[in-house]
Amino acid sequence: MKAISLIVLVLLSALVLVSGLASVTEDVELKQCRDLCRDQKQFDEKQQHVCIQRCEDYAREKKEWGGRGESAETDPERRVRECKHQCEQHKRYGEQEREVCRSQCEKEFREGGGRGKKYYYDVEEEGEEQEVFGEGGEREENPYVFRDEHFLKKAESQHGRVDVLQRFTERSELLKGIENFRIGFLEADPQTFISPAHFDADGVLFVAQGRGTFTMIRENRGRTTTSSRSEIKRHSFNIETGDVIRVHAGTPVYVVNKHESQKLVIIKFIRPVNTPGAFEAFHGPGGDNPESFFRAFSPELLEAAFKVDRESLQRIFQQKEGTIIKASQEQIRALTHGEEGGGIWPFGGESSGPFNLFHRRPTHKNNYGQLFEADPNEFEQLDDLDLMVSFANITRGGMAGPFYNSKATKIAYVVDGEGYFEMACPHVSSTRKQGRRGQSTGSSRGSRQGTTYGQVKSRLKRGTVFVVPAGHPVATVASTNNNLQVVCFEVNARDNFKFQLAGKNNVMSKMESQALELGFGVPAREVEQIFRNQNEEFFFPGPEMQRQRRRGHSAV
Amino acid sequence: MKAISLIVLVLLSALVLVSGLASVTEDVELKQCRDLCRDQKQFDEKQQHVCIQRCEDYAREKKEWGGRGESAETDPERRVRECKHQCEQHKRYGEQEREVCRSQCEKEFREGGGRGKKYYYDVEEEGEEQEVFGEGGEREENPYVFRDEHFLKKAESQHGRVDVLQRFTERSELLKGIENFRIGFLEADPQTFISPAHFDADGVLFVAQGRGTFTMIRENRGRTTTSSRSEIKRHSFNIETGDVIRVHAGTPVYVVNKHESQKLVIIKFIRPVNTPGAFEAFHGPGGDNPESFFRAFSPELLEAAFKVDRESLQRIFQQKEGTIIKASQEQIRALTHGEEGGGIWPFGGESSGPFNLFHRRPTHKNNYGQLFEADPNEFEQLDDLDLMVSFANITRGGMAGPFYNSKATKIAYVVDGEGYFEMACPHVSSTRKQGRRGQSTGSSRGSRQGTTYGQVKSRLKRGTVFVVPAGHPVATVASTNNNLQVVCFEVNARDNFKFQLAGKNNVMSKMESQALELGFGVPAREVEQIFRNQNEEFFFPGPEMQRQRRRGHSAV
Amino acid sequence: MKAISLIVLVLLSALVLVSGLASVTEDVELKQCRDLCRDQKQFDEKQQHVCIQRCEDYAREKKEWGGRGESAETDPERRVRECKHQCEQHKRYGEQEREVCRSQCEKEFREGGGRGKKYYYDVEEEGEEQEVFGEGGEREENPYVFRDEHFLKKAESQHGRVDVLQRFTERSELLKGIENFRIGFLEADPQTFISPAHFDADGVLFVAQGRGTFTMIRENRGRTTTSSRSEIKRHSFNIETGDVIRVHAGTPVYVVNKHESQKLVIIKFIRPVNTPGAFEAFHGPGGDNPESFFRAFSPELLEAAFKVDRESLQRIFQQKEGTIIKASQEQIRALTHGEEGGGIWPFGGESSGPFNLFHRRPTHKNNYGQLFEADPNEFEQLDDLDLMVSFANITRGGMAGPFYNSKATKIAYVVDGEGYFEMACPHVSSTRKQGRRGQSTGSSRGSRQGTTYGQVKSRLKRGTVFVVPAGHPVATVASTNNNLQVVCFEVNARDNFKFQLAGKNNVMSKMESQALELGFGVPAREVEQIFRNQNEEFFFPGPEMQRQRRRGHSAV
Repeated sequence: MKAISLIVLVLLSALVLVSGLASVTEDVELKQCRDLCRDQKQFDEKQQHVCIQRCEDYAREKKEWGGRGESAETDPERRVRECKHQCEQHKRYGEQEREVCRSQCEKEFREGGGRGKKYYYDVEEEGEEQEVFGEGGEREENPYVFRDEHFLKKAESQHGRVDVLQRFTERSELLKGIENFRIGFLEADPQTFISPAHFDADGVLFVAQGRGTFTMIRENRGRTTTSSRSEIKRHSFNIETGDVIRVHAGTPVYVVNKHESQKLVIIKFIRPVNTPGAFEAFHGPGGDNPESFFRAFSPELLEAAFKVDRESLQRIFQQKEGTIIKASQEQIRALTHGEEGGGIWPFGGESSGPFNLFHRRPTHKNNYGQLFEADPNEFEQLDDLDLMVSFANITRGGMAGPFYNSKATKIAYVVDGEGYFEMACPHVSSTRKQGRRGQSTGSSRGSRQGTTYGQVKSRLKRGTVFVVPAGHPVATVASTNNNLQVVCFEVNARDNFKFQLAGKNNVMSKMESQALELGFGVPAREVEQIFRNQNEEFFFPGPEMQRQRRRGHSAV
Repeated sequence: MKAISLIVLVLLSALVLVSGLASVTEDVELKQCRDLCRDQKQFDEKQQHVCIQRCEDYAREKKEWGGRGESAETDPERRVRECKHQCEQHKRYGEQEREVCRSQCEKEFREGGGRGKKYYYDVEEEGEEQEVFGEGGEREENPYVFRDEHFLKKAESQHGRVDVLQRFTERSELLKGIENFRIGFLEADPQTFISPAHFDADGVLFVAQGRGTFTMIRENRGRTTTSSRSEIKRHSFNIETGDVIRVHAGTPVYVVNKHESQKLVIIKFIRPVNTPGAFEAFHGPGGDNPESFFRAFSPELLEAAFKVDRESLQRIFQQKEGTIIKASQEQIRALTHGEEGGGIWPFGGESSGPFNLFHRRPTHKNNYGQLFEADPNEFEQLDDLDLMVSFANITRGGMAGPFYNSKATKIAYVVDGEGYFEMACPHVSSTRKQGRRGQSTGSSRGSRQGTTYGQVKSRLKRGTVFVVPAGHPVATVASTNNNLQVVCFEVNARDNFKFQLAGKNNVMSKMESQALELGFGVPAREVEQIFRNQNEEFFFPGPEMQRQRRRGHSAV
Repeated sequence: MKAISLIVLVLLSALVLVSGLASVTEDVELKQCRDLCRDQKQFDEKQQHVCIQRCEDYAREKKEWGGRGESAETDPERRVRECKHQCEQHKRYGEQEREVCRSQCEKEFREGGGRGKKYYYDVEEEGEEQEVFGEGGEREENPYVFRDEHFLKKAESQHGRVDVLQRFTERSELLKGIENFRIGFLEADPQTFISPAHFDADGVLFVAQGRGTFTMIRENRGRTTTSSRSEIKRHSFNIETGDVIRVHAGTPVYVVNKHESQKLVIIKFIRPVNTPGAFEAFHGPGGDNPESFFRAFSPELLEAAFKVDRESLQRIFQQKEGTIIKASQEQIRALTHGEEGGGIWPFGGESSGPFNLFHRRPTHKNNYGQLFEADPNEFEQLDDLDLMVSFANITRGGMAGPFYNSKATKIAYVVDGEGYFEMACPHVSSTRKQGRRGQSTGSSRGSRQGTTYGQVKSRLKRGTVFVVPAGHPVATVASTNNNLQVVCFEVNARDNFKFQLAGKNNVMSKMESQALELGFGVPAREVEQIFRNQNEEFFFPGPEMQRQRRRGHSAV
């Protein structure tokens, strides 16, 4: 029974993946879905029925939501196969990188990627959801979760978009500690050019999807040279999924998405340098939108600066194409082969360029997930930002934690998959059904005695941002139909430590039995049985997977 | 005459100390006091009369205040003697450590310690106080002094209490520079266990009284290891009066007061890491109060994380005892002998453990006081907090300063004794009787010409917190009946320097006579006479002691 | 025609300089001015007429503004000659230092210096100004420029003054990033003494004019000594124009202007250490104004601290002369020859003393200007403030930029000359005549698409402060009658880089032609022609100089 149940789930997951992205009309899609159900020889009648039901539910839901479909130009299945084949060929990859690589293939070619997609489809059994999310899902006072509606459009053209998350402190004073950080999202169509600009902000970019070339105009940082004496030079890097790129404030950058069919998706961590939490893009090339900053100067000043007449000047500041511009094959080719400084990194010998998170050995890895981390102690580029970049790939049905960060605050962006997280928080009131205590005031004032912890719980789907403050215990659960992939920017990261609250190496298992006995007020043996039962570390089978296993066992 | 006067004072001090804490009814206490007066053979009739008068005053005052008496279980005098004997045996101690040790004996066994005690008893002659404190003591606009009513209860049980001082900026915007710091106070009964918790704050703890064992669950900090790769381990330390302990944010800690009769008193310097000035405790073990943070998670999530059923789980999160729990002799013994890592520090070879402030050579020491300092340059643990911890023991009747800190702001907690401090402050208006100028606006705006300085003056007693900003000249005076003992947390301490304004090495004595002449507008000789007359450094005989000496001289 | 035009301008500049400061009645001054015009043999009738007209305009304007004239005691021309002669003798000087030195001679002896002077005289042709400054000069919403009315008087006496610029955030929340910095201005008459004081702020002083002796009372900073253990000592330095002096918070300082006729002018960069953006002076010597901080203490406390009676004490705190005090020749001599530690720096071997910005090799230098920079990486004194101090001397008619700082915010103080600056700013709305876009909201919220840049443009004259945030393109233009001399404090300076937007080494010239083509939307050739035409670097001939050259050419 358990085995069959798992197969159903896997199959349904696959269905959702495929059908959600096929470039077909809804009817054809629905038909395909039904056929797939019937083709499953291992299904009995009831299972086939449930399967077909799901197909219909999905189709209906998609229709209601207005289906922001895209036309895929080629057969996605063939592309996935090719892509996965390339994963195997990658010499630098170990098995875990290959898995991430293959998962990326699925995502890129089957789904088309991007935060624009709004559907969320729970494959859990009916009634389940209610129980999981309490009375009506997440609570309104939860200030830790951000969705599409909390993003501001910074630029949008027919070829892509740039969004920026609202300031954290617009949401809640509880986030004052991270008020100077922002999160951005960039999505560019295949074969496009993202126009040169600089920002009054430091940035760390994570390539969530795609392949391209990233160019910076930078000084050659020497030892102790005065700021305007040294020369500047163009630095170009090939980028791919998993790359992390540090961009210093003020550096002019431009990007090419050189892929023929795949979107380029970049998640940005931003630290403004002028006004806390506020930054702007400064476009040299431009017209009305984006405007060129050169147009803010008087014509006579520009004439003098450039030693040219104003008519010539006016001609070049009339760009009509916006920030993300369709490029020709020839232009792409010229921009992605490098011209200066001996070719494009990593072949040009540049040491301060991007590094790939997936090429690192995972800090935790088992059947239920993998955690990749880039530490500010190891990566000089992250050091002055006091930032760790990490990537958690939680296997479908698995969970990560509960654990807490000793001093870092985690800002997490869901790159792919669905699931939910739970966090214990002394600042929010709790309305859990199981709740046995009164409301906490949310303030640390007055004569309040002791501390109670509210439950912050929220669904996660692609594009959700959630914040986990230091010290707050948290657990993240992947849905049973998809891996949950999350990129995390952990600020205040130097000397941070992840204290685990369950599994091998958990905090309680290190205490003397007398401390447990006194602390918990029950015989030590009882406490120890609980904190020493789980043999996995960091990643565990999630609640649903556990339940299915139990049912499987009970059915046997 | 001078000698006799001193003896009276010393005797009266002793009386107050003893009688204030004896476990007797008020009548018995008063009788004891009177008898002690009569037993002083060296007293003449008038002196005996004054002495007896004091006894009666004290008894009356105690009655009015409702006398929060405690029952001492054994003879305090015997305990003091034993304790002092141990001071002499301590091999690592020099004479100054012995003195502090003996003074601690007095405090611990005679007084019982603790911020709860509210009495304040001036042994100065009548009428004196009025003159010293102006019209009715300290002024209301003084934002630099905090008393019992400015503390918030964080936890209170029958066996102890945890208080936290209100946020500094709740009091005044003038304290904005230290808004991210908090001060805490912990007092635990003998033979108790303070339950495990971690905090979203860095902490530096000063053991003001008592002996115990302090345990942290910590990672083994390596060179450049990624945050979740390294192992965690239990670290236990024996602690005693004068110990300074750095606790990193997120570290689970628990404490045992192993003493049979003595309370454990800890003063905490706290730097929150999430929200400026706000922090919370996170209790793993717990029930309703403190609640266990585990109870904020869904039962099904915990079942999966721990691989146990929810009934077992619910059983262990029902602690009813609160945060500070009475422990049995056996439990205490087990928790204070160490089990992991080769015994308890300092025998276990742990280098990053607590250090004792009193084992250091005092930076200043004479008959009028001693100053112990732990510099962030020397103590790696204090370095990232940019914090100096210091302890001033001002001899009864003595004074420290005037001096100012060049860049550090001092947050001082009175551990024992009474006295007062005076500070020159350009931000508060002055209403001193001697004042010859108008009100300053307290603002730096407008066309105000020049600067005037208000006098901040306030009584100090056990539990008073006072703040001295950088650059502000300050002097602290001990009452004539008790040493004034103050622990200071000096923030922004790196490269701080204490500039002395009187005594040897004072700032003015380093200036050319022409500079003094021009600056003061009187002949240099006059200025030099004043700034070069005092031969002591940092600690001086205080005003009352000086007056008595003068009277002594004039009587001779 | 071009040559003549230039001569007129130079002559008129000289006229303005001389007449503006001569110690004569307005009629005599006007007569002198007219005579000078007539003496110019190379002028034709029309030129003489224009010249005389200017004299009359100037005299009228001066009368209306109430002419804050001063009496010069000696012949300024002779003094200028002597001063310039000394410039030639200075052995350490290269040619560029000599030029600055000679320019300082002009300024110091002809003008008398100081922010007090309010006149501004444009020698540009009629109608010109309107075009340059748009409809009525700078816009009200410009929060980046500060003039005399934004300074607060801190101290003023008959011998000098101390002003402090208002807090930056009083003007605009856009300046929140620099809210903890302040700018101060000190001007002291010849042969004066600035009385000892310390501040609860770090300071960096730039000597804009004059010669004197600067004294600090400082500890001898050792390796890791505890703050109150080390000794203090007097350190005296000779200072001259161009010197940069770091003063640590709390350090008592006093200054002598030893020059016989020249004012001492110091521009101060201030970083408060207690309350963000707020600081105070603490005067030891003093009476009512400035008050001595000693007077805030109780007489009995001071008696005890100094071991003297209160009558002696009261005598020395009665200073009536204020902060800036006239000194006798003998006092000056004694204070400027050093007594302690083997003479006055640089002869006393002090390594952490002032350094002179003009003794450094300029980072940029051509016919149109020079830029001197002191980098926090090179100068340990600036390192903990993360501050660069720089000095731009823009030749009359020349311009600097456009360029932008990658991460530093520049706070600039106009030391001498006139001109204007233009800056592209995404935060202010633009009302330029040429404007082709709507108002930007000034906020980064809502569904605003893309970014537009407002023009910030403002006249500059002696005493103007202007702020240029990181990333903001800016150009500064000197008037055609005077060099524009600006001292800049650049905060957040570590690893800052100046990206140039025109001239050799400009950012666009480093991009591939395909990037330019795509970015600008026109053929690469057109863009390259514009960005590669200017051969100079950083400093260029300004708009007016260019126009005159063109006219000169067209006339030929």
